[in-house]
Amino acid sequence: MSRISDVAQRAGVSTSTVSNVLNGRSDRMAKETLARVETAIRELKYRPNTSARQLKTGHTPLIGLLVPSMANPMYGFIAREVETLAQERYGFRIMIGNTYRDAEKEAHFFEDLMAHGVRGVIIISSLVDEQHVEAAAERGLVVVSYDRRATPALSGGASVIDHVTVDSFESSRIATQHLIEQGHRKLAFVTPSGRTMSRNEKINGFLAAARSAGLEGSAQVIEGLPVDEYGDSMMSELGRMQASQLAAQAERPSGVIGVNDLLAFGLMAGFRDAGLSVPRDVSVIGIDNVFLSTLMHPAMTSVRVPVPEMAQVMVERVMSRLADPSLPTQEFIFPPTLVARDSVAPPRG
Amino acid sequence: MSRISDVAQRAGVSTSTVSNVLNGRSDRMAKETLARVETAIRELKYRPNTSARQLKTGHTPLIGLLVPSMANPMYGFIAREVETLAQERYGFRIMIGNTYRDAEKEAHFFEDLMAHGVRGVIIISSLVDEQHVEAAAERGLVVVSYDRRATPALSGGASVIDHVTVDSFESSRIATQHLIEQGHRKLAFVTPSGRTMSRNEKINGFLAAARSAGLEGSAQVIEGLPVDEYGDSMMSELGRMQASQLAAQAERPSGVIGVNDLLAFGLMAGFRDAGLSVPRDVSVIGIDNVFLSTLMHPAMTSVRVPVPEMAQVMVERVMSRLADPSLPTQEFIFPPTLVARDSVAPPRG
Repeated sequence: MSRISDVAQRAGVSTSTVSNVLNGRSDRMAKETLARVETAIRELKYRPNTSARQLKTGHTPLIGLLVPSMANPMYGFIAREVETLAQERYGFRIMIGNTYRDAEKEAHFFEDLMAHGVRGVIIISSLVDEQHVEAAAERGLVVVSYDRRATPALSGGASVIDHVTVDSFESSRIATQHLIEQGHRKLAFVTPSGRTMSRNEKINGFLAAARSAGLEGSAQVIEGLPVDEYGDSMMSELGRMQASQLAAQAERPSGVIGVNDLLAFGLMAGFRDAGLSVPRDVSVIGIDNVFLSTLMHPAMTSVRVPVPEMAQVMVERVMSRLADPSLPTQEFIFPPTLVARDSVAPPRG
Repeated sequence: MSRISDVAQRAGVSTSTVSNVLNGRSDRMAKETLARVETAIRELKYRPNTSARQLKTGHTPLIGLLVPSMANPMYGFIAREVETLAQERYGFRIMIGNTYRDAEKEAHFFEDLMAHGVRGVIIISSLVDEQHVEAAAERGLVVVSYDRRATPALSGGASVIDHVTVDSFESSRIATQHLIEQGHRKLAFVTPSGRTMSRNEKINGFLAAARSAGLEGSAQVIEGLPVDEYGDSMMSELGRMQASQLAAQAERPSGVIGVNDLLAFGLMAGFRDAGLSVPRDVSVIGIDNVFLSTLMHPAMTSVRVPVPEMAQVMVERVMSRLADPSLPTQEFIFPPTLVARDSVAPPRG
């Protein structure tokens, strides 16, 4: 097993430089030095000694990770990236919880983290009201929030939380724009009811794109039933049900966007159930670009969210702020990209 | 917030009976009493107090959960069931790790569990060699293994590990039998190379069904490349690649079984790539019955693995043996069931 001195030697730096990298104190390090240390860690398969770290830093080497549901392939993907990075790079393990976007469950998880001596948490939530999250941060948790922007502070002060998110407005704007460029004039955006920050932004992005093409009169936002069971079958079942209702409309839309890939998978299945062909009769786009999109028939056009890059920033932020609590919080907004496949075609007629 | 005395009153039992349920000591309790207590816990939304428990029992209220990859929807589903049950019923949280079925990563996870004072772990692995798992159990971890049977003990003694698994032999036997009943005579079973216990059993079940129908001469086992990246795109990419090779065979099989649903999704996509129609030209079956099977086009026939029931037994076994280390280990084998959908039809001609 490699020691920290082996890593230092291989990278041509001091052991304290390696230690700074391992403890998230690489903010002011030259990029080239950081890269050399990271390469040496990887090549030597160096793993920090958990118990020694805890004695030295006083931190339990655990990060909390809250997801709506691990059964959703998108959250499973994020969780895997976060866990692998935290473990391989920092020797931290992950304490995980499913919260179904329930504020009470989230608050309860924070309590348990404190009881376990855990001081850092990544929360995937996007609930509009994040007061309970802020309260946890005020009590000393280092919190990084995924999938929502910072709430504009009433006081004008900085947020107590880091925010890492894709630009959700842009995600649905480019999806809508793609449909418009293909000639679609009747558009729909389908989402469960129950507003989250990211859903609100996606709705706004959809409407903005429609408006700039003069299509506000023929762009519908469909809010279905609330979906409690995140990531399991209910999200796609909702899409399926909404597709059958859309298919029955006299002036049905020819281009439909799902709030996420699971819902869009359901839309495609629902249109098929109704005897419509995708994309000949109706075009469908999802958001997230989970790997299953390529396995659909037809392969589904989607909007890529840069998960590995975002996971890396989230883990680094937790580690850096655990190492230096005086660091100011930040907001990181990643750009989405359209991945065109076969579920979109020009409308007929 | 409800107290334990509220639960006892509602269920008409003593607080120590409730405490026994919460601490996994319900083995000798009347089923009816247990059900009453569980109902009261649920109705009152009672949550055990984590810190108080730890003081009283000396256990860190954490369970370790090892999965090959959280990005695989099947493991995400199991993880969600385990976490929700452990949390809601016992007030235990989950420490999770991805191991990509690597014995070294698994052993490292066990070390970290011990360092964190965690004494119970559920491991989803199925590696043929489970010596490192047995070693962890010998050092005092309560281990419940998912997806493999007990290794026949050389000494004739009982295993130090609980085993909870579906009958994998039977899973592929009934899938194969279903194809044979539809008239298929040329069969293939596709799996990554790298044998696990469950893969071995599935291969045996496939061959046994073929043999009893006199088809051993026309039943192929295709072992593809090893797949390191569990649950992400590589499993389905392997299926896709193998399908294109099968499609090019002069005497290609008309009925093909994937070792799991992800691989079978890839098979369906690969046959489409090759210009074949499922199920008109070739029938495909998966194993696991993840909810995404219903969203495929055509909806994919699969073999159901009873995950919620198995998750419950796994969590109960960990809790019972933490409460009473003298309990003997057990092996639980669950029956699979075929779920027929639209990806299987009689062969043409």
